[in-house]
Amino acid sequence: MARRVDLGALVEHAREGDPRAVGRLITIVEDGAPQLRELMAALSGATGPAHVIGLTGSPGVGKSTTTSALVRAFRSVGRRVGVLAVDPSSPFSGGALLGDRIRMQEHATDPDVFIRSMASRGHLGGLASATPQAVRVLEAARCDPVLVETVGVGQSEVEVAGEADTTVVLLAPGMGDGIQAAKAGILEIGDVFVVNKADRDGADQTARELRHMISLGMSGQPGAWRPPVLKVVASRGDGVEALAGALDEHRAWLASSGAGVERRRQRARAEIEGIALAALQARFGGVGRDGALDELAADVAEGRTDAFTAADRIVASVAG
Amino acid sequence: MARRVDLGALVEHAREGDPRAVGRLITIVEDGAPQLRELMAALSGATGPAHVIGLTGSPGVGKSTTTSALVRAFRSVGRRVGVLAVDPSSPFSGGALLGDRIRMQEHATDPDVFIRSMASRGHLGGLASATPQAVRVLEAARCDPVLVETVGVGQSEVEVAGEADTTVVLLAPGMGDGIQAAKAGILEIGDVFVVNKADRDGADQTARELRHMISLGMSGQPGAWRPPVLKVVASRGDGVEALAGALDEHRAWLASSGAGVERRRQRARAEIEGIALAALQARFGGVGRDGALDELAADVAEGRTDAFTAADRIVASVAG
Repeated sequence: MARRVDLGALVEHAREGDPRAVGRLITIVEDGAPQLRELMAALSGATGPAHVIGLTGSPGVGKSTTTSALVRAFRSVGRRVGVLAVDPSSPFSGGALLGDRIRMQEHATDPDVFIRSMASRGHLGGLASATPQAVRVLEAARCDPVLVETVGVGQSEVEVAGEADTTVVLLAPGMGDGIQAAKAGILEIGDVFVVNKADRDGADQTARELRHMISLGMSGQPGAWRPPVLKVVASRGDGVEALAGALDEHRAWLASSGAGVERRRQRARAEIEGIALAALQARFGGVGRDGALDELAADVAEGRTDAFTAADRIVASVAG
Repeated sequence: MARRVDLGALVEHAREGDPRAVGRLITIVEDGAPQLRELMAALSGATGPAHVIGLTGSPGVGKSTTTSALVRAFRSVGRRVGVLAVDPSSPFSGGALLGDRIRMQEHATDPDVFIRSMASRGHLGGLASATPQAVRVLEAARCDPVLVETVGVGQSEVEVAGEADTTVVLLAPGMGDGIQAAKAGILEIGDVFVVNKADRDGADQTARELRHMISLGMSGQPGAWRPPVLKVVASRGDGVEALAGALDEHRAWLASSGAGVERRRQRARAEIEGIALAALQARFGGVGRDGALDELAADVAEGRTDAFTAADRIVASVAG
């Protein structure tokens, strides 16, 4: 599938900000090309830690518009920005989000903005996300911040939080009251909350409800981060500067409190686990192996044994 | 957490259709109580294979209403029905879907209808779903069919398809055109398509588009199942008998074509893999183990090594 390329040269060009080189490196990440390992080893340590900002929220709250407005805000102070648009519902990448990407077109010709859509399920069979590796490529290209926009609801929101330093949860007036938010588990994952489309009826109430529910959930220990709730009209740029400011404040808090180091370690932990599990899973079906999976699956399906007993045999065959 | 209970007696009572016994067994499944293994061993082989029907679709298409109408249809021909409402977005179970469950209240006093809400992420840390095990409890209680209704969009839809014999994909007019459906990957997973709220404008067009896209995707080999597209007004019961008939037809096709056996094996395979991976993952963090995860995570986070190299060490420490 992937041709063998001169990785050293590609990485060098990516560092210099060549968008084609960045694109090709992310393609290696997505494809899980034979050179992915080599690429990750090459990038390890050499990349400065960018501020990784996750943006999440239900469809229709204006994630792309807000992302685009944030890109503008960061560009106005001279920062190079990377954007990953991750679509958990799509097995495809690249063109999957073309419609949404149109909102990002104003940045298409800016050499200091790197935008890429990708599927969230990586090459490693769904257990490992390719997002952290793509982030690393953008870090190598000296992007800071890297914005990770996740489409979708539910579990994927919680997952994006695990891959970001700062998680922005977007809501829109009338699109889900506080109870819905609590139900979806988004109160726990948000570092910054945005009520977008704040020129609509009900914005104040949504913001008030959110603040109330956040204060209920606050543990109150000194030094804890208190997630702000910001009203924004991203399509007009209203409130976007304040949002960028809140993101910078959270970054400073991450650095001063030590929470940032902890989050990065947790992220690395999840990444390692995903890769290790995928590697172990690849050994499950080995031909001629004692406890071969297909045979055990038939036994379970036809009631000759149960799944736990079968799993014991698989584990024993892999891990001894 | 869970008290030690007399499993043999509970299973016996569940078989006799005691709803409290069924409820307690599903709680054991959800909690991953120490007796879960014992329970699964006790149920293995002893449970007849029910027709497991998955219902999925975006929020608002009328999944609960359709499920309730289907329960009525199956009850009218004397079948005992189990319903699992799985909420992938919620870390909580039980009361999570209370609002939706209200639509099921007409069946609350029917001793031959078992309804249970549960979170999709099981006790095994997100890698293994508890759904197949809960299905097995309902099978033991002689429910047939078992309806598995999944809330949410995206990846969860694909997952529910993996846990059902027959997957019903619901849509509503104007709630997403054919392209949206294709994007979400639901065309591939549906055995039966339902355009619900078919008294609304656009129902014919939605059905037509769906049929067209399905025919484009049909391989055309003889004996293949051709997914029907049915128009239903679940709130009035219109078209629900035809839907129940289509489900019975699909079940007959599964039996005659051999596809049913294959699906059950694939399902068992995924279940075994999930349990085995969770068991392996539990060994990753062992204290004092060479390549302990926390230390490696710090190394990756601080750029001293990369995630693939770290994962190699974890795999070696577990699997030798």
